[in-house]
Amino acid sequence: MAIFLYTDFGSADLYVGQVKAVLAREAPGVPVIDLASDLPAFAVEPAAHLLDALVPQIPEGSVTLAVVDPGVGGARAAVVVAADSRWFVGPDNGLLSVVAARARDRSCWRIGWRPPGLSSSFHGRDLFAPVAAAIARDAFPTDRVEPAAGLAVTLPAADLSRVIYVDHYGNCLTGLRAGAIPREARLAVAGRSLAFARVFSDVSPGEAFWYENSLGLVEVAANGASAAAQLGLEAGDPVGIG
Amino acid sequence: MAIFLYTDFGSADLYVGQVKAVLAREAPGVPVIDLASDLPAFAVEPAAHLLDALVPQIPEGSVTLAVVDPGVGGARAAVVVAADSRWFVGPDNGLLSVVAARARDRSCWRIGWRPPGLSSSFHGRDLFAPVAAAIARDAFPTDRVEPAAGLAVTLPAADLSRVIYVDHYGNCLTGLRAGAIPREARLAVAGRSLAFARVFSDVSPGEAFWYENSLGLVEVAANGASAAAQLGLEAGDPVGIG
Amino acid sequence: MAIFLYTDFGSADLYVGQVKAVLAREAPGVPVIDLASDLPAFAVEPAAHLLDALVPQIPEGSVTLAVVDPGVGGARAAVVVAADSRWFVGPDNGLLSVVAARARDRSCWRIGWRPPGLSSSFHGRDLFAPVAAAIARDAFPTDRVEPAAGLAVTLPAADLSRVIYVDHYGNCLTGLRAGAIPREARLAVAGRSLAFARVFSDVSPGEAFWYENSLGLVEVAANGASAAAQLGLEAGDPVGIG
Repeated sequence: MAIFLYTDFGSADLYVGQVKAVLAREAPGVPVIDLASDLPAFAVEPAAHLLDALVPQIPEGSVTLAVVDPGVGGARAAVVVAADSRWFVGPDNGLLSVVAARARDRSCWRIGWRPPGLSSSFHGRDLFAPVAAAIARDAFPTDRVEPAAGLAVTLPAADLSRVIYVDHYGNCLTGLRAGAIPREARLAVAGRSLAFARVFSDVSPGEAFWYENSLGLVEVAANGASAAAQLGLEAGDPVGIG
Repeated sequence: MAIFLYTDFGSADLYVGQVKAVLAREAPGVPVIDLASDLPAFAVEPAAHLLDALVPQIPEGSVTLAVVDPGVGGARAAVVVAADSRWFVGPDNGLLSVVAARARDRSCWRIGWRPPGLSSSFHGRDLFAPVAAAIARDAFPTDRVEPAAGLAVTLPAADLSRVIYVDHYGNCLTGLRAGAIPREARLAVAGRSLAFARVFSDVSPGEAFWYENSLGLVEVAANGASAAAQLGLEAGDPVGIG
Repeated sequence: MAIFLYTDFGSADLYVGQVKAVLAREAPGVPVIDLASDLPAFAVEPAAHLLDALVPQIPEGSVTLAVVDPGVGGARAAVVVAADSRWFVGPDNGLLSVVAARARDRSCWRIGWRPPGLSSSFHGRDLFAPVAAAIARDAFPTDRVEPAAGLAVTLPAADLSRVIYVDHYGNCLTGLRAGAIPREARLAVAGRSLAFARVFSDVSPGEAFWYENSLGLVEVAANGASAAAQLGLEAGDPVGIG
């Protein structure tokens, strides 16, 4: 059992530490792991797809606090989702909807509770963290949530034909799951047509290619170089097969 | 009980890990939380105000190792401050003086101890971490510190009419506490006059405004955009009410 | 006993968290410390020298997972090194060779084991982390490794006359150990000749100098300013004594 943090709060900023202070107080002794803290700000759809790809890395029974929340303080609801034995806590803005749609089993609760002193801009600390901590210490907060038929906001659960994340090496993760794509297929991106390679060292230095990354996604990379810089790619750019 | 780290050491750099290695050895089992690692380098005054704003997020009984220390290795003293049931360890250069001045109760000790092999440039690891660890494991190091009447260097404790921190979203935190400022007031900043809004979604996309942030400070923000980029703001820039 | 992470995975990226998820599952309760996550990508030689300088900060008995691995998924071997009572797990590409060469005692094992589902690009998560976790929980994986006479790839173990790391302050760490260099010596770098100073505050604001840093290395710095920006230095640039 652990708590995973999946946010756009910024690893270099003041916010993750404040969430951890709440978790240390409300779920002492439970390990907290930064799964991602630098998701592109305000970008819900790519983060929803990336989260689904990361799910196999999260042990069953764990709680993931997921926050990419441009509408914080507004009308969007706050939810708990149980999907195939993993817990997720976050805003009901689509962020959890791809995980929920692709799970074999899912349940959903709406967080009706509002803590005293709730800030308008930091529900990750004030609202989601206490709920996540309660679940993580095996004290599901039935007094703070009510069962819901489903999420209010759902995004399409089909693969997303876009770059969803650019890592610091310049590798470009896409929302396409690689399992169903034949290795002979070419990837159309940034006006180029890229061939498949199994591994970086199979292509020439600097050469761009696509491969199945360690999360099972189609990823655009270059051997020893930044594919993002070479191709001018950024999160949101379209990709195609063929 | 936990140890909080509040430094300009850089979350992407080599220094926080070395401090944690000392804490793991000297206070095994005590949780260590990165409150802030990327404070603007060498900028003591804004960090002193931001620390005071963060104090309510730090549980009573905890120890905060605070280091923004351009004079490391020089003549400045090293101190322990107890302020309203929280411990702080760091340089006597003003960094802890706003917290101390605003506390209801405070005590101060000067760290006379110098460990063998003390480096000239990394007192966070060599001097402050061992002292913080001793306090955190409930072994106040009376052999290493001596009571002091107060801090040698104190900064004005009144609100600071400046931007004190720019986060990665481009939000600009100021040294003004929002509680005493009427919501009708306008904020003068970068040649503009900004109105108050309760929450980001209350203004048009891209519109700049001021609001009370989750630490109780006046913050300049823009809905779904970077206020810092839009207004050309950086830490140290002046702000005014009216 | 702790596990130290020393990688170029990026503190702001998705990879360190996935490694920690494996470690939390396979070595529950063992502290994990980020020693460095933002080593220059793909640059093995400077990282090999920096690791050796960091060794005294790592407690004996600890396990360091070290990954700067441009050849991941290719033919390079995977190894465990025991050097003076510390364990290291990583690629056999030279990264561990400076530590091994400078140790008084060393032993080496080759990791023959390949886990089911091994990815081609993330051996840090799939291969090195399970091995490091086994060692850290005191269950040396004799079924997964075989003794080896030595490393296949070794770099020169003499001091490296280059900048090996630039920190976020703009300080430039070199691969020269300062202990053997007289304080009267001048450092030739970027067309300049720099004098020694004991501490930042011993020189004028903005002035560049060299000093013995907290790891015992020669470091180029400037008082309250970025030496890297001032001198146009980056990792790999040559330095000389004289």
